[in-house]
Amino acid sequence: MNVHDILIIDGLQYVNWNRELFEQAKRGGVNIIHVTIAYWENKKEVTENIVNWDKKFNDHADLIMPIKIADDITTAEKNGKIGIIFGFQNCSPIEDDVRLIEKMHHMGARIMQLSYNNQSLLATGCYEDGDSGITRFGKVAIKEMNRLGMIIDMSHSAELSTLEAIEISERPIAITHANPSSFHDALRNKSDTVLKNLSQSEGMLGVSLYPFHLANGSACTLEDFCNMIYDTAELMGIDHIGIGSDLCLNWDYTILEWMRSGRWSLTPDYGEGTATQPTWPKQPAWFENNLGFQNIIDGLKATKFSDEDIKKIMGGNWYNFFKSSFTPLDTINNG
Amino acid sequence: MNVHDILIIDGLQYVNWNRELFEQAKRGGVNIIHVTIAYWENKKEVTENIVNWDKKFNDHADLIMPIKIADDITTAEKNGKIGIIFGFQNCSPIEDDVRLIEKMHHMGARIMQLSYNNQSLLATGCYEDGDSGITRFGKVAIKEMNRLGMIIDMSHSAELSTLEAIEISERPIAITHANPSSFHDALRNKSDTVLKNLSQSEGMLGVSLYPFHLANGSACTLEDFCNMIYDTAELMGIDHIGIGSDLCLNWDYTILEWMRSGRWSLTPDYGEGTATQPTWPKQPAWFENNLGFQNIIDGLKATKFSDEDIKKIMGGNWYNFFKSSFTPLDTINNG
Repeated sequence: MNVHDILIIDGLQYVNWNRELFEQAKRGGVNIIHVTIAYWENKKEVTENIVNWDKKFNDHADLIMPIKIADDITTAEKNGKIGIIFGFQNCSPIEDDVRLIEKMHHMGARIMQLSYNNQSLLATGCYEDGDSGITRFGKVAIKEMNRLGMIIDMSHSAELSTLEAIEISERPIAITHANPSSFHDALRNKSDTVLKNLSQSEGMLGVSLYPFHLANGSACTLEDFCNMIYDTAELMGIDHIGIGSDLCLNWDYTILEWMRSGRWSLTPDYGEGTATQPTWPKQPAWFENNLGFQNIIDGLKATKFSDEDIKKIMGGNWYNFFKSSFTPLDTINNG
Repeated sequence: MNVHDILIIDGLQYVNWNRELFEQAKRGGVNIIHVTIAYWENKKEVTENIVNWDKKFNDHADLIMPIKIADDITTAEKNGKIGIIFGFQNCSPIEDDVRLIEKMHHMGARIMQLSYNNQSLLATGCYEDGDSGITRFGKVAIKEMNRLGMIIDMSHSAELSTLEAIEISERPIAITHANPSSFHDALRNKSDTVLKNLSQSEGMLGVSLYPFHLANGSACTLEDFCNMIYDTAELMGIDHIGIGSDLCLNWDYTILEWMRSGRWSLTPDYGEGTATQPTWPKQPAWFENNLGFQNIIDGLKATKFSDEDIKKIMGGNWYNFFKSSFTPLDTINNG
């Protein structure tokens, strides 16, 4: 099975894009990418990021296009363009204002994490000791995101907050980029309880290729990775798993410092790294960049997945999920 | 004992000040007032509030002066002016930036609550169901406030967060305006555990006269109020109790809506009120405004407090607490 013959959707990437990298992604067969446009950015800063993306859409109109509604995914595929979905890894762009959710939706945001490692105004992050669950503001925000058709993403959130988000949200939620804790025990990975509740509510998991989420880190084998997908499919069902590579490319260390320390810390926080190894981890040799998707297809094939299942994992499941998730509630309710 | 013969310090008021109200406060014998300049205000909004206060200090220089250092309290008293201490009821003015704590200190803020009813980035509020305790950002913020000499106030925070703040802070903290839950069971009042830990760490409680914090609300008698102070002194020791009246004057309902709902709710949140009784509660007849302090002195006297103890409660304890709290740590450490 060739990467160019099936729909490939990546549930999260954080890349410092330029023309060469868009071209590489196209050669690698990627159709749709959920791109991160905020970690700690506030309203003003995220607006600047969106304006910068406008310039990219203009300069590289032959290669990329924005995804705002489900039909855009089909349009992108038909025209051979990479579809770009805007997402926030944190709720910082809405600051303390629930009405900004709709404004951010107008500007194109379709996915928002309720917290990023730390406590936010909406939910607790996975690096905190305590976990207050979904806050009062968080409950209002979830309702508003449900109404608009903005996906709730709990990738960097803590256990109780994640379980409550699944419970409170009237629409299925996503963990766009994380792996099961049973595969590799890390604060960022997810318990079987979370994964089961996620799939039972028709939610989606994007399995991650970020070395800190992998057994044996950068040395993780393709076989182990695909076996993890197999085990996760046993747990969650094949229809609830996609790829969320968490591919980070072309950034220097200062960006990783921003991701980890934002403005909340006076000294560097090393996050998943350490003081002696603070910088970006090395990607596994079989997934160094967007040319690696063929390897994953081949690995899944070797793990005895059927062609139908491989299609689901590589993009079919995300397609169905995005299609139903991006529709505003009033459109659904009014037929 | 006359109100004009002793030091009167109010641990918190929220008044829409004008010349008449400053004059009334002076007639009432108040020397020092901790005034609220933020509930949900962000950096820009709180700066505007501070600029508006600059105008007040200019226009009413014969009546009021700002308190920035401990010695200012003595200066204010000596010159017959009301000393004004700036405080935030929430950490919203520092947004997501720990370095803004020092900037706010430069602008005059001397007291900051770590959360206001809801979850904040630093701590959980008393209206939330869960309580994550002091967050990662909160720990950094407490250290920074300790360094600068900015008082940590947990009046509107949740139980675990408050206990952790007492534990984590290297300097005594305050609950500027609340009562014991044993006197009146309300989300805003405090457990015996909190009050004991507060006093054991040399912290301060300001007892509140806001009707929602009082047994029998607006109908609370002066005798019951003073007996509550007596019982609280038994629990905490006489040196850890002051007045924190929470006196709210001259505001219309829209301000109460702002205090309760900020920007986080799409519908009115009624807080301590109800949909049928949404507006400001009526003050007890014996403490309708800043002329009521003499009644409290008389009430304490009738409750068999000694003159020395009454002086402590009415201002002496706050004076000692502010004096040691406002000194920056490096000044203390360098002698």
